[in-house]
Amino acid sequence: MSLSSTNNRRRARKRSLRKGLPPGVPVYTGDVAGVPVNVAVIDYGTEGVEELTASSTDALQRFQHENTVTWINLDGIHDVENVKALGTAFGLHGLWLEDITNPATRSKAEVMNDRILVTCKAFSVVDGDVTAEQISIAAGKGWVLTFQERPGDVWDPLRQRIRSGGGRIRRMGSDYLLHALLDGIVDHYFVAIETFEAVVDGMEAEALEPTRAVELKQIFVLKNELAELRRAVWPMREAVSTVMRADSGQIGEDVIPYYRDLYDHVVQVMDMLETSRERVVGVYELHLAVTSMRLNDIMKFLTIVSTIFIPMTFIAGVYGMNFKDMPELQWSWGYPFAWALMLGSAAACVAFLVSRRWI
Amino acid sequence: MSLSSTNNRRRARKRSLRKGLPPGVPVYTGDVAGVPVNVAVIDYGTEGVEELTASSTDALQRFQHENTVTWINLDGIHDVENVKALGTAFGLHGLWLEDITNPATRSKAEVMNDRILVTCKAFSVVDGDVTAEQISIAAGKGWVLTFQERPGDVWDPLRQRIRSGGGRIRRMGSDYLLHALLDGIVDHYFVAIETFEAVVDGMEAEALEPTRAVELKQIFVLKNELAELRRAVWPMREAVSTVMRADSGQIGEDVIPYYRDLYDHVVQVMDMLETSRERVVGVYELHLAVTSMRLNDIMKFLTIVSTIFIPMTFIAGVYGMNFKDMPELQWSWGYPFAWALMLGSAAACVAFLVSRRWI
Amino acid sequence: MSLSSTNNRRRARKRSLRKGLPPGVPVYTGDVAGVPVNVAVIDYGTEGVEELTASSTDALQRFQHENTVTWINLDGIHDVENVKALGTAFGLHGLWLEDITNPATRSKAEVMNDRILVTCKAFSVVDGDVTAEQISIAAGKGWVLTFQERPGDVWDPLRQRIRSGGGRIRRMGSDYLLHALLDGIVDHYFVAIETFEAVVDGMEAEALEPTRAVELKQIFVLKNELAELRRAVWPMREAVSTVMRADSGQIGEDVIPYYRDLYDHVVQVMDMLETSRERVVGVYELHLAVTSMRLNDIMKFLTIVSTIFIPMTFIAGVYGMNFKDMPELQWSWGYPFAWALMLGSAAACVAFLVSRRWI
Amino acid sequence: MSLSSTNNRRRARKRSLRKGLPPGVPVYTGDVAGVPVNVAVIDYGTEGVEELTASSTDALQRFQHENTVTWINLDGIHDVENVKALGTAFGLHGLWLEDITNPATRSKAEVMNDRILVTCKAFSVVDGDVTAEQISIAAGKGWVLTFQERPGDVWDPLRQRIRSGGGRIRRMGSDYLLHALLDGIVDHYFVAIETFEAVVDGMEAEALEPTRAVELKQIFVLKNELAELRRAVWPMREAVSTVMRADSGQIGEDVIPYYRDLYDHVVQVMDMLETSRERVVGVYELHLAVTSMRLNDIMKFLTIVSTIFIPMTFIAGVYGMNFKDMPELQWSWGYPFAWALMLGSAAACVAFLVSRRWI
Amino acid sequence: MSLSSTNNRRRARKRSLRKGLPPGVPVYTGDVAGVPVNVAVIDYGTEGVEELTASSTDALQRFQHENTVTWINLDGIHDVENVKALGTAFGLHGLWLEDITNPATRSKAEVMNDRILVTCKAFSVVDGDVTAEQISIAAGKGWVLTFQERPGDVWDPLRQRIRSGGGRIRRMGSDYLLHALLDGIVDHYFVAIETFEAVVDGMEAEALEPTRAVELKQIFVLKNELAELRRAVWPMREAVSTVMRADSGQIGEDVIPYYRDLYDHVVQVMDMLETSRERVVGVYELHLAVTSMRLNDIMKFLTIVSTIFIPMTFIAGVYGMNFKDMPELQWSWGYPFAWALMLGSAAACVAFLVSRRWI
Repeated sequence: MSLSSTNNRRRARKRSLRKGLPPGVPVYTGDVAGVPVNVAVIDYGTEGVEELTASSTDALQRFQHENTVTWINLDGIHDVENVKALGTAFGLHGLWLEDITNPATRSKAEVMNDRILVTCKAFSVVDGDVTAEQISIAAGKGWVLTFQERPGDVWDPLRQRIRSGGGRIRRMGSDYLLHALLDGIVDHYFVAIETFEAVVDGMEAEALEPTRAVELKQIFVLKNELAELRRAVWPMREAVSTVMRADSGQIGEDVIPYYRDLYDHVVQVMDMLETSRERVVGVYELHLAVTSMRLNDIMKFLTIVSTIFIPMTFIAGVYGMNFKDMPELQWSWGYPFAWALMLGSAAACVAFLVSRRWI
Repeated sequence: MSLSSTNNRRRARKRSLRKGLPPGVPVYTGDVAGVPVNVAVIDYGTEGVEELTASSTDALQRFQHENTVTWINLDGIHDVENVKALGTAFGLHGLWLEDITNPATRSKAEVMNDRILVTCKAFSVVDGDVTAEQISIAAGKGWVLTFQERPGDVWDPLRQRIRSGGGRIRRMGSDYLLHALLDGIVDHYFVAIETFEAVVDGMEAEALEPTRAVELKQIFVLKNELAELRRAVWPMREAVSTVMRADSGQIGEDVIPYYRDLYDHVVQVMDMLETSRERVVGVYELHLAVTSMRLNDIMKFLTIVSTIFIPMTFIAGVYGMNFKDMPELQWSWGYPFAWALMLGSAAACVAFLVSRRWI
Repeated sequence: MSLSSTNNRRRARKRSLRKGLPPGVPVYTGDVAGVPVNVAVIDYGTEGVEELTASSTDALQRFQHENTVTWINLDGIHDVENVKALGTAFGLHGLWLEDITNPATRSKAEVMNDRILVTCKAFSVVDGDVTAEQISIAAGKGWVLTFQERPGDVWDPLRQRIRSGGGRIRRMGSDYLLHALLDGIVDHYFVAIETFEAVVDGMEAEALEPTRAVELKQIFVLKNELAELRRAVWPMREAVSTVMRADSGQIGEDVIPYYRDLYDHVVQVMDMLETSRERVVGVYELHLAVTSMRLNDIMKFLTIVSTIFIPMTFIAGVYGMNFKDMPELQWSWGYPFAWALMLGSAAACVAFLVSRRWI
Repeated sequence: MSLSSTNNRRRARKRSLRKGLPPGVPVYTGDVAGVPVNVAVIDYGTEGVEELTASSTDALQRFQHENTVTWINLDGIHDVENVKALGTAFGLHGLWLEDITNPATRSKAEVMNDRILVTCKAFSVVDGDVTAEQISIAAGKGWVLTFQERPGDVWDPLRQRIRSGGGRIRRMGSDYLLHALLDGIVDHYFVAIETFEAVVDGMEAEALEPTRAVELKQIFVLKNELAELRRAVWPMREAVSTVMRADSGQIGEDVIPYYRDLYDHVVQVMDMLETSRERVVGVYELHLAVTSMRLNDIMKFLTIVSTIFIPMTFIAGVYGMNFKDMPELQWSWGYPFAWALMLGSAAACVAFLVSRRWI
Repeated sequence: MSLSSTNNRRRARKRSLRKGLPPGVPVYTGDVAGVPVNVAVIDYGTEGVEELTASSTDALQRFQHENTVTWINLDGIHDVENVKALGTAFGLHGLWLEDITNPATRSKAEVMNDRILVTCKAFSVVDGDVTAEQISIAAGKGWVLTFQERPGDVWDPLRQRIRSGGGRIRRMGSDYLLHALLDGIVDHYFVAIETFEAVVDGMEAEALEPTRAVELKQIFVLKNELAELRRAVWPMREAVSTVMRADSGQIGEDVIPYYRDLYDHVVQVMDMLETSRERVVGVYELHLAVTSMRLNDIMKFLTIVSTIFIPMTFIAGVYGMNFKDMPELQWSWGYPFAWALMLGSAAACVAFLVSRRWI
């Protein structure tokens, strides 16, 4: 399990490449996925679905004003020119284009000129590895644009639903499509958290095992990763509520309950994250306490051994002295007497230790 | 005592089974109790009570418009079709049906189209074991539906009150019934917390006992369980206040004081939980401090023993050397002199230790 | 010093006895003080004072509508019937009667039908022991009812003031009497906190004493008791402000400044409690740090002693070996040479320890 | 450096002397400075300044209605009669008189009947010692009263400015005078904090010094004193904003920016205090970590010494045994062989310790 | 890396030099950079740019009312007279002049008489060293004044953009210039944080390295520096939002999105700071836990060595005693018997230790 957090942070750091640039000039500051730009258009209505694939954004503007709902997905935001062309064609503000091409943009939603922009992180889990991707979704009347860098995303079931024409999606407008896209992202938050929870479960089990120790490094890394996840999810609550409260009838009255449901899901994700975080802190505290209890055990054992043998060794030392005139040495019961002394001192020590309940 | 928390978490985890599904499609994601669906109807008014039991939800719609108050309880939400049929018959939104069949739904109240949905956790205590169950309560004018998975619940005294016709319940409407149902749930919160408090009491007593140690594991488990309880109770405050503030006259003016009372109870539960949590943290801190004080005691003892015997053993060692020419060995008072040296050094050590107040 | 907290908690626990009862049915769930019910009436106006004592609540209703101000105090809320009779006579809601007879009710104020109910904890200090009592105060136009379990309370100076007729009290209405009652309770909060502060003072002095240790148990108990006090005082702020903001002219314009003053006092109590809490935490932290510094001192000492003697003992051991052919043993300066070796090694150790500033 | 905190607390404790007294009865509950009452009047306008000194408050009422601005300062609030006379003459509410004579009153501002009362703590620094004094400032149209116990205050530069007639003060009203008085107090907060910051600077430098230890006691005392300062400053923000927002034109439109400036200063003081507090906590944490690292160093050293010498001593012991038949003892190379064994075991130990990087 | 924090604090401390001065009198309380005052004027419009340099502020007033946008930058705020002349010419309030010349002023924005004042800290990074400078920006219709002490700032790219005439800047008004100035400052916040993040990255890597220890001093210093950065950045959020919400049309409708974008950047900076802070705390906790685990390892090793050798040494001591009559000494298998005893005791110890999983 890893959130590929180093990458993420490295990319965010490139934020400083922008310094000195005027605002509203889109510059790509992230890693380039190394794949060509791909534009996929799905245009649908109650009657049917039309799909297009292109490698540039030319001639897509016509979809803006058609009666059908159009979803244009662009893979490869490193190609700033295409993003700019598409964004401008659909009337997005220059600052938004800057946000779309900046993979370090904070999750948020904005409403300007009857258009909505949502930027957020999507998490997908492949083989237990959580990878994050910056996603931007712009929506207007009748169309939704989605922007990402790498091909492959969390929306394949949604595409299937559109194509099959089952369910509600083909009968609803672009506001419902926007909801469906966000819902797909949030649904994967649950998957990501469950991946982390499995790790926390393992750590807890280990921490309660008497003879084993949690690896500190793991707690540390997990805490950092949960913090990163939290920073991605936290602003989503406000973003969803911003979309929901967008005035000028962007979101239809009948779609509002779906957004409220989405909002509840985000809150639940936050809850689960908080729980995971508390559990990790609990494991850390348990680890600290267990470490200090074990130190006690070790020192207690050392003390017992030392306390018993140190006086005995002393007595043996005494009768190893070479004085000319040591009466005990000449006694015929001298040797048994020495043993008696030694065992007596040991017994006294044991008795003392038992009286203090250290044995 | 156990909150059967693992089960709970495992069920919550299945949340990811939903990924890719459109919203509003009810899917049961919890454990199946393994019992057949059971529907119990109680229909009452000032004049009398009528009770029905069924194994499906057919033909219940007629209760929606009668003048009496109807309470329909459904055990077995894993049977999604029945839930769907009942919910649709009483005009519940598809998203609500999804919430009802999802045992991981967060506690909340929602108001839509003159209907109220409350989802929450109910706790029942059997033999000191606290078990949680997801409960959904939907209410409209003249009827209340309750949904749960397992048979048996916290409402038997309420059923008794309805049947006996004593008290206020038979004279009041469905808004009072909704209150009574929530009140029953919250009353059991007190029972659950008291179960935990008994454990905390025991832990505190143990922690203050000088010769015993609290089991760290117990603190750890208790903290996690209290956190879980807290996550269940916390949203209830908002839920109750949402119901109370529901506009369009859902809750009658004369019933409002009862909801305010309920609200106070929820706040009191939260208070008690907070207290328990603080006490557990206190026990943990006490444990840490006691552990470190005991380490001090142990090390002090080892130091005292070592400090007294190490110089004595050294002196014995000196006079155990085999040099040809060691004047002391030939002295007639050599042996007593050695003892004097040894006891003197021991006395000096003891004096020093006493001066530092370690003895 | 003790807050008789165990009692308190035990009583609160009996809260679960109520489970299954309909709301609004008063049941006494606390300890019974074992004294008969006592009702004391003080009826006063500008002209004079009339006092009555009774053992039941019959025939008190007439005071509700007289022009004078009436204060009826009832000791012994375990006698639910009397409470019910009195409350009903003065028009209190059934839920309020439940609150009055429940000694675990949270401090709060409520306004309903031109009546005010304040429930709170009163603390009295006898011989350094703080005892808590649940007090309920119900007020209406021209009358105030006070309910408590045990005889004896914090209001004797107030009774004196009413009887003597000095000051403002006889010229003012029941809103001022309500203020005076609350003021008496809050004044005793100061006394209770000062009792705790004296304990904290002692603990701080002890913690700073170099050779003594605070008893951990004391810190622990004090923290719990301060937390309990805090839970009693905290809701008073909201309660006072609820009374003050009661609409429908319950509290006269000229009495408002007195309530504002009371509010300030409650805030000051909270401030003082917060200070005490912080100081106790400080003592705990100091204790932890002192414990760990002392461990350092102990271990340093053990290390010094061991480091000096271990090499010396080894050298003595070497020359205690019995090899046939050990040249040093035959040297005439062998013995002094051994001493030189031993003292030299000791000196080297000391020098090393000094260089690391451990001596 | 000391905040004379014990005094302060002792005085605050006497708060309980009031218990049972009706509100609005001024009683002095602080220490008596032991100086006679002194009343100083400064009456000024654009034309000139008139100064008066008196030992009682008689005949000062005339200043209330004159056109000039009058500042009456009273030293010695223990003389409750004078305070009462002056306060009543200028129309202050009885509760305010109680606040003025109570040195434990929380910092606050109140507005009643066109009058403003500000109570706060003033800090003055003499020779590095911070002393606190309770100050009350009452202001009305054209006059300001200041009350304190001890002679000498933070306002001498202000008096100078009034006398000299330079600057803005002589041209402005009593609202500006009130601001100037508060500004003088807040200016001295900076001085007090800087005194504490100097101590924190020293502690930080010491904590980072490798061979020295911060005295725990100092951290503890400093934390308590900063907490006390914080409790004095914190409510000032609300007090200033209460004065600023006083309706009924108490504060002129042109003076508002000065109050806003003052407000900014209070916020900055709070910021600085917060910084100091965080730094002290940092020093405490550093101290804890350094202590535990030093323990590691000490134990590591003990372990190294023990590990090297214990096996060697054992070998020496073996060859010190007196068995009749020990072949090694007869070898001609026996003694060097023993040394080889001993040095070899020491070398093995050192090699092991180096391999674990403990040396 | 260092935030030159000592300087900063020293300067802030001089705040007390102001005590006793009336408000609104500008006094420079910071370090003097030791350079002559320099005034640089850039006056631009759609048609062209005019640049002026001067060493005093005379004759600049004419720019206030011209139709072009004028940006006057003043280096050297220690020359209070020049600041005062320039400020007065452009109608700034006296209190603002005080703020401008005070390098300890908290970051904030104020709006008075159609003028905006923003004071904040700008950070520039030279060779990994972060240095802070207090910047004040005053803006009115058609002009912006910037005040700083040292020459050289973060705005050179902006100057270039104005001169080149590319982009939007030459076509926009002074509200956009104000935004561009703030944007330049906030852009450098990212650079400063990235400098700190690089240090945190290094510390984390070190902390996870098993054989090395983070230097505690570094954690301590870094925490203090991050806290300082945070105190500088935190108020910027409110400042930007104050500017944005300035009524009376100070900020044009079309420029608002740019301010919103700036606001987002400030929030992102705060987020990054919070992350860094959490990571430093994480490193501290990890350090503590690692230290205590290492102590365990050390003590375990000492205990193992002692436990094995102490009994063996005792046995050797026993047979080193000189009693006349010790049968074992005469046995022919005595010596091997002793070895058997010793090795047997060692084996028993090892077995015991293995059974407790200490080996």
